[in-house]
This record gives sequence, structure tokens and C-alpha cells, in this order.
Amino acid sequence: MEYKIGLIGCGTVGQGLLEILVKKAEELRERNGFEARIVAVSDKLKGSVLAPDGLDISKVLEILGAGKTLDAYPGGSGPSAAVDPLDMIEKSNADIIAELTYTDIKTGEPATGYIKKALRTGKHVVTSNKGPAALHYQELKKMAQANRLQFRIEGTVMSGTPVFHLAETGLAGNEIREVQGILNGTTNFILTKMEVDGMDYADALKLAQKLGYAEADPTADVEGFDAAGKIVILSNVLLGGSIAPADVRREGIGSITKAMVLDAKAQGHRYKLIARAKKDGGKVTASVAPQRLPLSDPLAGVMGAQNALTFDTDLLGKVTIQGPGAGKIETGFSILSDLLAIHRTLAK
Amino acid sequence: MEYKIGLIGCGTVGQGLLEILVKKAEELRERNGFEARIVAVSDKLKGSVLAPDGLDISKVLEILGAGKTLDAYPGGSGPSAAVDPLDMIEKSNADIIAELTYTDIKTGEPATGYIKKALRTGKHVVTSNKGPAALHYQELKKMAQANRLQFRIEGTVMSGTPVFHLAETGLAGNEIREVQGILNGTTNFILTKMEVDGMDYADALKLAQKLGYAEADPTADVEGFDAAGKIVILSNVLLGGSIAPADVRREGIGSITKAMVLDAKAQGHRYKLIARAKKDGGKVTASVAPQRLPLSDPLAGVMGAQNALTFDTDLLGKVTIQGPGAGKIETGFSILSDLLAIHRTLAK
Repeated sequence: MEYKIGLIGCGTVGQGLLEILVKKAEELRERNGFEARIVAVSDKLKGSVLAPDGLDISKVLEILGAGKTLDAYPGGSGPSAAVDPLDMIEKSNADIIAELTYTDIKTGEPATGYIKKALRTGKHVVTSNKGPAALHYQELKKMAQANRLQFRIEGTVMSGTPVFHLAETGLAGNEIREVQGILNGTTNFILTKMEVDGMDYADALKLAQKLGYAEADPTADVEGFDAAGKIVILSNVLLGGSIAPADVRREGIGSITKAMVLDAKAQGHRYKLIARAKKDGGKVTASVAPQRLPLSDPLAGVMGAQNALTFDTDLLGKVTIQGPGAGKIETGFSILSDLLAIHRTLAK
Repeated sequence: MEYKIGLIGCGTVGQGLLEILVKKAEELRERNGFEARIVAVSDKLKGSVLAPDGLDISKVLEILGAGKTLDAYPGGSGPSAAVDPLDMIEKSNADIIAELTYTDIKTGEPATGYIKKALRTGKHVVTSNKGPAALHYQELKKMAQANRLQFRIEGTVMSGTPVFHLAETGLAGNEIREVQGILNGTTNFILTKMEVDGMDYADALKLAQKLGYAEADPTADVEGFDAAGKIVILSNVLLGGSIAPADVRREGIGSITKAMVLDAKAQGHRYKLIARAKKDGGKVTASVAPQRLPLSDPLAGVMGAQNALTFDTDLLGKVTIQGPGAGKIETGFSILSDLLAIHRTLAK
């Protein structure tokens, strides 16, 4: 089956997806019976192009890779003359909108508006944007269901490492009572460097910034805001909660000193920034805080920029998945995995 | 949707499944839209009962729990007068056969015959039996597809920890190049005891036997035959191979001494019995052998009777799943998870 896909946002994640679609076109067609046609691209910085019959993806990648804007593509416009994303979603013949704009964890906008417009005009939505998922998941999910559409968010937590697919298929039939995980690669990298290389917090942070793991303003990572957004999503999607980022008890890693890390090490322990959500009765509570784990904990062995999540279930006990938590191709893949999930449903 | 299910074999796994179905009937109906009616049970030691309108599952569990045979159930027969499983499969009105007899890894019988009969008479098959999966997977899968039926095997490797669901859904779109894992809980328990408690191999084995982790004849576990059967299944299902148990290069843990384990520990390493399968060009090769891993390897942290599997993929790199590898409810759940997978396909 062939799907017509519109991209709102075409930065790192969007280009990662396009690269995969070019490289794997034949494999996806033969093994999965899946074909993708990109019928719209809209990006604030790169401009827009509408092409109901499908774009030449390699050409789009070439233009963006060369630092040019979409007015270099036949029929396309640069950012100043770009079609407004809301108009583009309405006009486009896309079956599925991939919403890949930047995350605003405070308002969820403009992404939430784009997603609603897509669902109202009969289009499935896949997104790696944490804002709408953390702030409006239940509302958007219901809106999708009411329109017999899908709203999928695999890339919002642990990039393409399939935590939501796992819960939806392999763990189905279990009651998930609690989840806890390492959901922020930057802080895990810093803690790893402090322990393994004996670095100070400040030096480890500087190295993370130098390597591109941490932003110039590292607040969102080191103070636990990023992990808090993700644990809210897990709370609301996997535990049926309806909490907001402000409900998360949050503590960053700034208070962890090299002495504490080395003392823990000497005693066979290890500090990790643990995000946790728990269902107690009907109530879901969530927290992000540094914890000193025994090395026997499956999360203690997760080193560097890797992420991991432990599900505590009634039938299987604890099941842990570990994998990448970021990356262009890894997050691009998260979008593909949601497209394939929609395909498995529709192709039956 | 309601499914009529026939159980061939009703030992630990079958009773684990039945317990879950009783306990979770309401939850499965409300959350998953799934209802199960058990219309046939056949067990070599416990007898048989055919009930096209569905059995009283609690009553069956009560009888078997009391050590009685199925002649204690209205219309049922004890083992001497039991209906032959092949006849039962043919006569039953089941939509799905759960094949749960004992594993014969050399011949795959009688299970393979039961599975073929079920597929020929229009019934889906779910199984936790390693024999048919290790020896005849491709043939049985093709037979199922030709009849528009499903043949599912989640419980054959790592009990209910969802390795096949993960590959089929969350990792779909990836090329799996290699898998490696800890697939035998008994040997992992022994190696853990040798390291953590400084026990000799012989004492650790005796303890495993005492706790019911190891059989009186521990050959299948400690010489790697069990893990070899499982890596064959993974090779053929996930890597597209067509290898047999005899093709696996196999070495057990008998050569690992306490001194070796403690020497590794002193150097920050750990011995694990690692099963591995690799695709090289078109060829799949597999091995089972003890390996000395650095503690940074995600498999090094897997302690006691836990199992784990690392997938090496082209888009996500390495993804590891860790969870239980055995147990009555855990393996019973593997059957439920395959029933729910069939339901998700049919209910669309």
C-alpha cells in the first residue's frame, strides 16, 4: 500500500526520515508492503512545497543538505513566501501528517494546533514532538478515535527505541503498575563521565556541550525538565494518568558531586537520574530525581547517552528495554515505525 | 470478539494460561475487546474433554489443582479413555489451537503433527513448544500463510518477554544483523552464584536443582542444548536463516571454574553463557558459548534466572530487552500475548 505523507517541520528528524525512506524504499516495499510518497513539506526556516503527486525525495535532501531553501525545488517557496502550515495541512491530499516541529513544553504550540487541524481534516498524525504529547495526549487521542484516525507518538520518548510499541503489543494483557527509566542521555553521559573518568560535574558538562549532547543553556537537561516531560507522557499513555509537567516532583543532577559519585562506586552503587511514574489506586504520581542504585538494577548498567525503561507489570514482573535515546536516524526511524504501525492496521 | 480455543497439553503452561484467563476475564474484555472460551482440553496425563459451548475454566483448574484427572469433569475422560489429540483437533470447533505439549528438540513430535493437523483444519496455532519452532518453523509458517492462518511462537524463547512481538512491531523497518542473548536462566543462575557467593560449580548446580531451576539431569541446560534450540529459533525467525540445532557451535559452562569467575570479577569482567546468531552475506551462523564480558555490556548486568536479548540493527544500533525467561504465569502469558496478536489482526 502507498501512503501520501505531509511533513510539518523538516529539520533533523524530518531529514532523518527522508534519508531512511530513500535508502530503504525497495526493502520497505518488498518486506513490509509499504510505500511512501511525500506530498507536502513545510518548515519555518526552509520554506514549503506542495506536490500532490509526490516529491523527488533525493532532490529535497540534496537542496536542504546544501543549506538552500525550498524555493530551489520546482514549485517550492522560500521561508518568506511559504504556505502557512495550517493552510497546507488543509489543502494537502496527505493521508498522514508527520508533525516534526520544535517542542514547546510550556504551551505545546504551534504543534498542537497543527495536529488538531490534521485530525479534523481526516489525516492520521505521527509525531516526535513532546509538547502536544505531554500536554494534550488524552484529548488528541480521543479526537483521533472519534474520527477513526490514529495519533502516534513513538519518537517522543527514547527516540526510536520502541517503548510504546512494546506496551501496545508485546506487553498487552499486562497491567503496567509502574515505569522507571533513564530518559535523558545528556545527564546520563555526564554522570558516566564523572564516575568512569573521575571528572568534575562542570568539566563533564563542558565535554557534553562540546560533543553536542548538551545545549549552550543546559537547564532543560540537567535540571530534569526534559525527563519530566517524558515521564508525563509515559504516565498518561501507559498508566492512564492525566498529569501535567508541573505535577512532577523534579530534582536535577546539579547537587551530585564527584565525591558522591566515587563514594557510591566504592560501595558498588551508581548514581542515575531516574524518572518514575507509579499508579496507586486510581492515582498516578511521577518524579524525576537522582538515585543511588545497586549495580544489580538493570538501569545501573545503562552507560553514556543510552536510555532505558523498566516496566513493572502484574504478569511478567519487570521487563526492561534499553536503546538509543536520540539521534537523527534513530528519531527519523521512530516516525517510520509509527507509519508502519498505521500500515499494519490499514492493510489488514 | 470471542475466540474458541483448544488446549493440546495442559501442564504448567496451560494451567498458567487458564489462571490468567479466569483472573483477567473482565479486564481483557473491557480493555482489549477480547474474550476466550475454552472448547477442548487434551493432555496425555490428565485426560480430555470436548465442550463446544465452552468449559467452566475455574472448575477445570480446581480439578487439576487437586491432582485429579479430567474424568472428574462432566463429559470428560481420564487419560486411559482420552480422545486422541489429532482426532480432537479435527473434531473441535476451536478457532485457535494452543499447542502446549512437551518439547522434543530432536524430532519435534508429536507437537509438529498436531500443529499441521490444526493448520489443515483451519485453526490458528500458538505454541510455547521449542521443538516445532526449532525444526520446522519455515514450513509451518508457510503452511499457515497458505491457509490465511497465523502460527505464533512468542513463548518458545524467554517465556513471555516479548522478543518476537518487539521484532515484528517496534523494530519493523530495521534490518536485524545479529542477535545475542542470555537465553538460559539455569546457567545464568549458576554463574551468578559462583561469582556473587563464591560457590563452586558443583555446589551452585546442586542449589539450582534444589530450587527447581535445574533438572535432575542438567545436561540440556549446562551443556547449552536448551540455549542452542532457542538461538536456532531466533536465527530462523528473525534473521531468515534455515539452520538446525546440529548447526550450532555449542559449548556449555562445565569448563568454567570458580577461579576463572573470580579472576574475571577482579578485572571488572563477568562470564555469561551467550547465544549468538549472525547474518553474514546471505548466511546465518549461530553459537552458544561462555564469554567473558566487560561490565559495560548490557548483557553483563543480567543476573540470576533473568534472560535478555540484544538486537543489532541497521537504523537503531543495539536494542536490548531483559525480562523473565521462565515461569508458569510468565509462559502462560506468552500464549495470551499471541492470542491477543491474532485478535488485533482479526478485529480490524
